[in-house]
Amino acid sequence: MPEMVTVSCRQVPSVVGDAPGNRRRITAEARAAAAAGADIVLFPELAASGYDFASAEQARAEAVPLDGPLLDEWRALAGELGIVLVAGYAELGDNGHVYNSAVLIDPDGVRANYRKAHLWDREADHFTPGAAPPPVVDTILGRLGLLICYDLEFPEWVRLAALDGAELLCAPVSWPAFPRPAGERPNEVVKVQAGAGVNRMPIAVCDRVDADHGAAWLGGSVIVDPDGYPLTSLALGEEAAITATIDLAASRDKSIGERNDVLADRRPPLYGAITKERV
Amino acid sequence: MPEMVTVSCRQVPSVVGDAPGNRRRITAEARAAAAAGADIVLFPELAASGYDFASAEQARAEAVPLDGPLLDEWRALAGELGIVLVAGYAELGDNGHVYNSAVLIDPDGVRANYRKAHLWDREADHFTPGAAPPPVVDTILGRLGLLICYDLEFPEWVRLAALDGAELLCAPVSWPAFPRPAGERPNEVVKVQAGAGVNRMPIAVCDRVDADHGAAWLGGSVIVDPDGYPLTSLALGEEAAITATIDLAASRDKSIGERNDVLADRRPPLYGAITKERV
Repeated sequence: MPEMVTVSCRQVPSVVGDAPGNRRRITAEARAAAAAGADIVLFPELAASGYDFASAEQARAEAVPLDGPLLDEWRALAGELGIVLVAGYAELGDNGHVYNSAVLIDPDGVRANYRKAHLWDREADHFTPGAAPPPVVDTILGRLGLLICYDLEFPEWVRLAALDGAELLCAPVSWPAFPRPAGERPNEVVKVQAGAGVNRMPIAVCDRVDADHGAAWLGGSVIVDPDGYPLTSLALGEEAAITATIDLAASRDKSIGERNDVLADRRPPLYGAITKERV
Repeated sequence: MPEMVTVSCRQVPSVVGDAPGNRRRITAEARAAAAAGADIVLFPELAASGYDFASAEQARAEAVPLDGPLLDEWRALAGELGIVLVAGYAELGDNGHVYNSAVLIDPDGVRANYRKAHLWDREADHFTPGAAPPPVVDTILGRLGLLICYDLEFPEWVRLAALDGAELLCAPVSWPAFPRPAGERPNEVVKVQAGAGVNRMPIAVCDRVDADHGAAWLGGSVIVDPDGYPLTSLALGEEAAITATIDLAASRDKSIGERNDVLADRRPPLYGAITKERV
C-alpha cells in the first residue's frame, strides 16, 4: 500500500542576532506549507539562530536548550498543524557544550534531536561535534532519518541511515556557493543524488539563501527519488519553497533489476578498513 | 610537482565467442591510444571475452588463466607501448573457479589482478564473487586503484580505494541502459561523480557499446575530476575514445576549503555498523 507524503523544503533566510524574526518566519512558513498540503516541512541548518556566527561566544549566546521555549513552540506548531517539522538550531546541551543540532518533531513530540558529527570550516570553532550516528525514528508518517549538511558528504553516514531503515532522509543544510563548470549541477546536489541512488532512499535537502556576514549560499534545496533523480527543480540562490510527493513504502524496496538489492548485495565483512582510524 | 598523465577510455565492442577478434581490437585500440599520447588505456569489463554469456558453461569455456597467452600478450603490449593497460577478462582461477576479473598492467608487469566482488544480475550464475578489496598499487605513473562496474555503486568500496591512496581509480564497466528522466545524466555517472568528489579521487570509467545477445549498453564512459565534475563529454551508446589529462599529484591533496579534508574529517569509530552483516 503506498504511503504518500508531501515534503516541502522552505529555502528561507535567517539572520544571526534576530532569533525572534527567524522564529516568526519559520512559524509563518510552516503554516503556509501545511495549508498547501505538506506533511513534512523542512527548514535549513541553524534556521532558528542564523548560521554565520562571529565567535564561539556569539554561538553560545544564541544557543538554546532542547527543553526551552523554542522547542516548546515547535512542538506546539507540529501538533497544531499535524506535520513533521525538521529544523536546525544552535543547541546548548545539558553538559554545557554548544552543538549544531537539528530536531525532527511530529505531533506526538520530539522524535529526534541530532548533533552534527562532521563539522564544516569555522563550525569547529563554535560547536562540539556530535558523537552519535544519524537518528532514524518512527513518526506518524513513516520512518525518517536526520543528518546535517556536511554529514551528507560522508557516504558512510548516509548508509547508516539507510541500514537503519530510513524511508526518507531529511537534511537541513547551509551550502556555501563554490565555482563550478558551466552547465554542471552543483556537486553537493550530485552527492545527494548518489546517496539516494546507492541506498534507494529518498533524500530531502533544505538549504538557506541569506548572505549574513557576507557568506554566499548556494540555495540548492532538492528532493531526490530512490533512483537518484531530482523530483524538484533547483531554485539556486532564491528564496523558495520546493515540494514533492513521495511514496515512503516504495523506499523500503531495495531491489534493482530482477536479481539485485542495494543493501543485500553489500559485502560487510570486507568493509572493515572503513572503521579504522588513519595514522 | 604535477604528475600529469593522459588517460584514454576505449568504449569499444567485444563479442562472446570471438575472443580472437576482441583481442585484435584491444591491441589495435591500445596502439592507437598510445600513438595519440595516452599513458593509461582502459577497456571495458570482460573486454577480452565479451560480456553476455548464455550459461556458466560458456563463461567457463571462455575463461583464461592469469598466466596464459592473453595476459602474455597484454604484458608485452604494455611493455612495448610504455603504457598502463587496464582491461576486463573472464578469469579461470588456479582453484578452478571462474571470475569476472580485470588486470592493471604496466611495463614492469601485472600490478593487480582483481576479481569483481559485487556481482550484477546473471553474473552470479557465471562467476564466483571476489573476496578481496579493490587493489591499489604503485605503477610507473602513480598509485592506481581498480574495481569493476557494480562495485562502483558501493561507496564503501570506492572509499577503501581512496583510503589506500589511489590517485586514480580505474573502472572497467558494462552499464546496462535504463530509462531515466528527460535531461538527466544517467545515475551510474552521477554515482561516479559523487564517488570522486567525496574522496577527492579522479575516476576513469570505460564502458562498452555492443549489443551482444540483445543487451543494450549505456556507453557511459567518463573521466571525473577530484571535485566530482566530468572532464569528458559522454558518448552515450557510441563507439568512442574519451581522453583526459589528470594531475595525479593533486589528487593526493584531500583538502576542501581552508579547514577541511575529506578523509581526515571522517569519524571512523562511529561507522562500525557499516561492517555488520544484516539478519
